[in-house]
This record gives sequence, structure tokens and C-alpha cells, in this order.
Amino acid sequence: MLTAEIIAVGSELLTPRSRDTNSHYLTEELNAIGIRVVMKTVAGDTEEYLEHAVRGAMDRTPVVITTGGLGPTEDDITRKVVSTVTRRPLVLDDDILNGLKRRFASRGIDMPVNNARQALVPTGADPLSNPAGTAPGLWIEDESNTVILLPGPPAELKSIFERECRPRLIRKSGPAVLVRRVYRTTGLPESTVDQHIAPIYSQYTNPETTLLARPGQVDVHLAAHGKTEAEAEALLSELGARIEDELGEHVFATDLREMEEVVGLYLIMKRATISVAESCTGGLVAERLTRVPGSSRYFTTGLVTYSNASKVDLVGIPPLLVQMGGAVSREVAVNLAESVRRREGTTIGVGVTGVAGPDGGSEDKPVGTVHIAVAGPDSTEHREFLFPGSRERVRWQSSQAALDMVRRLLATF
Amino acid sequence: MLTAEIIAVGSELLTPRSRDTNSHYLTEELNAIGIRVVMKTVAGDTEEYLEHAVRGAMDRTPVVITTGGLGPTEDDITRKVVSTVTRRPLVLDDDILNGLKRRFASRGIDMPVNNARQALVPTGADPLSNPAGTAPGLWIEDESNTVILLPGPPAELKSIFERECRPRLIRKSGPAVLVRRVYRTTGLPESTVDQHIAPIYSQYTNPETTLLARPGQVDVHLAAHGKTEAEAEALLSELGARIEDELGEHVFATDLREMEEVVGLYLIMKRATISVAESCTGGLVAERLTRVPGSSRYFTTGLVTYSNASKVDLVGIPPLLVQMGGAVSREVAVNLAESVRRREGTTIGVGVTGVAGPDGGSEDKPVGTVHIAVAGPDSTEHREFLFPGSRERVRWQSSQAALDMVRRLLATF
Repeated sequence: MLTAEIIAVGSELLTPRSRDTNSHYLTEELNAIGIRVVMKTVAGDTEEYLEHAVRGAMDRTPVVITTGGLGPTEDDITRKVVSTVTRRPLVLDDDILNGLKRRFASRGIDMPVNNARQALVPTGADPLSNPAGTAPGLWIEDESNTVILLPGPPAELKSIFERECRPRLIRKSGPAVLVRRVYRTTGLPESTVDQHIAPIYSQYTNPETTLLARPGQVDVHLAAHGKTEAEAEALLSELGARIEDELGEHVFATDLREMEEVVGLYLIMKRATISVAESCTGGLVAERLTRVPGSSRYFTTGLVTYSNASKVDLVGIPPLLVQMGGAVSREVAVNLAESVRRREGTTIGVGVTGVAGPDGGSEDKPVGTVHIAVAGPDSTEHREFLFPGSRERVRWQSSQAALDMVRRLLATF
Repeated sequence: MLTAEIIAVGSELLTPRSRDTNSHYLTEELNAIGIRVVMKTVAGDTEEYLEHAVRGAMDRTPVVITTGGLGPTEDDITRKVVSTVTRRPLVLDDDILNGLKRRFASRGIDMPVNNARQALVPTGADPLSNPAGTAPGLWIEDESNTVILLPGPPAELKSIFERECRPRLIRKSGPAVLVRRVYRTTGLPESTVDQHIAPIYSQYTNPETTLLARPGQVDVHLAAHGKTEAEAEALLSELGARIEDELGEHVFATDLREMEEVVGLYLIMKRATISVAESCTGGLVAERLTRVPGSSRYFTTGLVTYSNASKVDLVGIPPLLVQMGGAVSREVAVNLAESVRRREGTTIGVGVTGVAGPDGGSEDKPVGTVHIAVAGPDSTEHREFLFPGSRERVRWQSSQAALDMVRRLLATF
């Protein structure tokens, strides 16, 4: 399978807040024609570093794409550096120069002298015309490497890539495609997921398997390549089916849907409605459910019963229950779920109460203790959790577990 | 000036949609202590490529930080690769192993065998304790390089960097200091903020001024360097005072506090309490208020009145009001704020109703129309907004505006 590296050039890309969106675009485009991106580099406008980066990439990888550094100013160094590394002296390309002059003339402007720099190309480089800007792209090919220089402005880069690069790269990569699938799981730590599936996926080099953990979630990514999409998809399906089988109901999505979207789809499919009474999550369960466009079809009401008084007044938790067992208990969670369900007349009611921290923990109920209940038409499920981590993580994991319990209940409808 | 490179490890970072937020965080932190980032690399989980990347970075640059690839699975290769490149064989660190065992034991789980891998360290590496997760960071230092291995999950990376790396790196970077200050503003678009303050900040090259816009918020960042912290701080204070003066009450924080934290501080200072009745924000206002540790001191109750029925039943909005003017109106917002305030007996009540989209807009009330009311002891403020952007952005900007109205009301107490 053909591989590529992307080198983004520009000191501004090394500041804290810049985002290299070009490399995301290129990765997607390259993957779609069966070329895998194996490394990405961001280099500033310093010749020495960029030289290092280009040389390293050419040593490792057949296709090297640079973005940026093709402008008309002193600190646009990509042409010069690539010329040095490939040992192709810069020469003036008359066609490019005339094109630049015409471009400025058509706007009634004399071409600034600086722009002539954009007509310098490494000997033997093939210009890639840029209808959207002044800097043409460049295509340099020898026995071992294809080096492609693209301008940094996204609109220019995209138009050159689509018109000039994609067709040539398709011819190079031959009939190969890369397809991806993700299995999103919840309820198991990353190491446990891996213990389950490593014996399966390690039998395959194609598809490649990668695990990615977030709080309350482990995503299993598969990437398969094949001569045709059908061939690659078949490989994905074979391994995918085995992984899904092994992980069972822990898998909540086989695409990039979030848990709240999956729950929303179930609610619509089962014609069910939902209401929530939550304490330690402070509105997060309701907020996640209502992130989904169209959630008014199934979500009616959320109660954030943060104070004990509001648990009593709003949901009708018996005051004695809160006084005796404390607000964090199985009984309060069940009562929250059943009361909000009854009060709002929904198919499902959710109750969450716990200790999110950092304060408020005790020996009995340390920070991270969370009780979650989900009430349905026939019965109420309850689970107690002890979540690790910060307040934010405890709250997030609680919301994830609550939504997952709803998903599992709906699956039985 | 000391320089650093960042190498992000993980095949998922080479897929089209991933974002390497860790490198942004690290760049910001490194800049703040006078260390410049000169190159960034993203490498997959392939030993050969990562070896190339680590070797290249160590050749070029004194400080090399890797993120990710320290997990317990087969494809977590950072430890192994760094051990190869630095020629420091992997050895089992008993302290780390025992820490891992304790961590699992405290959650009542037997440690999966795989996790023992996380106790392997290159000979002579200094473990950096990770209170937020299982993988410790590692610090390897020889004559020419400092190589720092950090785990990929952002919360873990941040906690290790702040506790362990920042103090050590400050000692290495020596007496040149870079200090930063941020003025967080809300209620003005980025271009308006810039129009106001560009005539001021453009008179200074030190501090450097950068504007950063997020939905509902524009942050003005100042960075000053000096021989001593006092010298740099004096430079910051001079420009900072002029900027704050110009932007007035739009500035809600002069540090990295979020709006909900600022509102929380005001509520405590003014001994006030708050409750919320929200519709289009779906719980986001309550969720943000309760993100703050200790928010139970002032937050009592949130009502997410998503359906019209729940607006009527729960808050007592007159049914005629919803039928006549629709649920998105000044009257409903005011009624939500005043009713929840009265019902819950809090100092302040907040009401939010609007059209978050993508559907539900009309010519009269296009997507982004949001009415917000804040009821206090003496009066109720109302504002109507038309927020641009996606559902997520409309909801976020609504929550920001609601919290800002609370902040401004509390300032008059």
C-alpha cells in the first residue's frame, strides 16, 4: 500500500492555537484513494528544521506533500529547501512568470517584484496550476519519491489537489482503497477491552486495529485496505463481526455516533419518551440528551435537584429518606427515577445521585460514588458505581453510565 | 532561548478527524515559561516511524516531549522506542508496579496482566506520578537532551505536566521569563474588540497581544518577556490596565477563570442563591453552574422544561401564554425566570427559551432566536438575542449570555 507524509510549513502553525486543517483534508483525500498517511510534521519558517523534516520524510516514505511556504516573501522557504534536499537548483520558469504577470495585469496592478520569486522552481519540477491564487503547486518525481508542494491557503490547496494531484495519485496508488470502521464501547476499561480482543485482532495485519480511550468509552478502530472497496469492506466485516461478538452489548455504536445519539435513535424506534432527575451530574444527562437535533420528540423534562430541599419539594423524595440514608443512596436514586417518570408521564425516568467531588466524600461514600436508577414501565434498574478521577470525569462517566443503562433497557423493549 | 519539539504518538491521530489538542496545550505551557516549540510531529503506532521521529528530534532539539503510547496494550510503543533510541534497556520499576496494583485494588479490581507493561521504564528514567490515570510519565535526561514521555489522555497529561514538568523545565529554561495575562470578554464580536484595542496594543511590541475568539467569548492574551518576572509583570500591567479600561464591563475575568466560576464567586461574595428554568439550552446553564466545585453553596435547582407541557405543569406558565405567543417569547422567558425564583425561594432566577435549530425556525423567529430573563429581588432583566451558527453554538452562546446577565446583575447588588 502506498504511503505518504504531510509536512505543514509555517511558524504560525507552531503557536498554541493554530490548527492545521489542511492535513485533515489531505488525509481524508489520500485515504479515499488508498494512500495511508504515516507521519505528519509541522515545521516553522526556519530552513534548517524544514530541511531536516523534508530529508527525513523522503528517506522514509515514497509520497511527501508539503503545505505552505510558497508565498512571495522572504520567509516562504519551501521551494528553496526542497531544491536543496532534492539537489535540483532553482530555475526561473517563464510560463509561471508570464502567468503571474497576466494575473496581476488583469487586476490592473503591476506585479510586485517579490512575486517573481514564485516563478522559481527546482529543476525539472512540474508546475500545478492554481486558479485560486498566485503560487502554483509543484510536482517533483524521481525514482524513489514523489514530492508535492502545495500552497497553504486551504481554498488554493484544495483546488490544486482536486484538479491536479488526485488524478495523478490515483494512477500511482493503483487500484487500492482504505476503509475504516469504529466500534464504540462503554462499561469496560481499555485494558479489559484489549484483553478480550487482542487474541482476535492480533491474528490480522489487515485490518489494522487501534484502541482509543476516553472517559467512559473505549473506541476500537479498524482500518482495512484492499484492491476494491468491496474487498476492503469484506476484511473489515470479518474481523469486525468477531470483535463485536466478543464485546457483545458493551458495543453501543459501529460508527461515530455519540451515546446520546444512539439513545435518541432507540427512543424514536421504540416510540418511547424520557425524563431525568439528576443531582451530582447537575444537568449533564439532560444536556447530552438535548444536544441531539430533534430530541424534543422524546425528551420532555429534566430536573436538577441539587439541594436536598429540591429533592424533597420537587420530586417528592420523603424527607426521612434523605435524612436517614443521605442523599446519595440506592433508595434516593430509585425514587428520583420513579418519581420523575410518574410525574412527567414518560416511558422512562432516570435518577442520578452521587459524590462528584472534590469535597463531600466520606469513608462510606468516597468521591466518585454514584447511584443511578432507570425506571421503565415494568421495573426499575439500579446500579452503584465508583468512578475514578476529577469532578469533571466523575460527572461525565456518570452521564455515560446513565445513558448506557437507558440504552440497555430500551434494547429489551 | 530553550527550544522543544513535541511528538504525538497514536495511529488515530493520523486519521482524518482527530485533533491533537495536547500539542496546543503543551505549546501554550512551554511558551509561558520561555521555551519555544520548533517542530511538531505526529507518528502512528509503528515502531520504525516513531524511532525515526524520536531520533530526528533528539538530534535537532534539546527538549523532546512525546504524548501518548504509554497505555497497557500491544500498540503502546513509546516506552519501547525511546528505550531503543536512547539505548536504555527497559527495566521493571517496582514502585510503579505497586502503585498500579494499589490503584486497581482500591477499585476492587484485580490488575489485568497487561497493565504491568506500564511499569517498564528505560533504565535511569525518572517516573512522573500520574494521579489521574494508570500510566506514569517518564523523564529521561542526559548531557544533550531531556526526553519527557507523557500519557495521551488530556487530563492525565495536564496534571503530570503541571505538577512535575513545569517546575523542572522552569529551572532548565533559566532567567528569561515570559509572563502572560488574559482578559476574557463577552458580548462583543472579535472584530469589535480589536477595533477598540488595536490602537492601544499596536504601540507595544513587548507585550505581544493576541486575540482568541471562542463562541460567546473573546480572550485578549498578552505575553511579555523580561529579565525578571517583576520586569515582565510591570510591562503586562501597563498595557493590561489600558486594555481593561477600554473594554470596561465586557471584561469578565483577568485570568483563566470560566464565566461559571466568575458567577460562582459573585454568588458567594453577595451571599446569593440561584435557580434556573431553561428550555433550548436543555440543562447547559445548570450544568455549567454546577461544574464548579462547591456550587451547592448557591445552586439549588434546575428545571429543563423542554416540552410545552412541562413549561405549563412544572413552572406554571399560563397555557394561554404558550399558545398565543409561542414558547419562544419575552413573556415566557420572564415567566420562567420569575416562577423558578419564586418557587425555589432563591435570590436569582434565570429563564431561557429559544430556537437552537437546526429545525424549528420560522420567518418570525429564525434559528438562533433566544430570549433570556434574569429575575432578582427588585426587578427582572430581559434580553433577546439572535445567535449565529450551529445548534451547539447557539446553545453555548445562550448559556454564556445568561451567565453574563447574572454576573452583571450581581455586580449591582
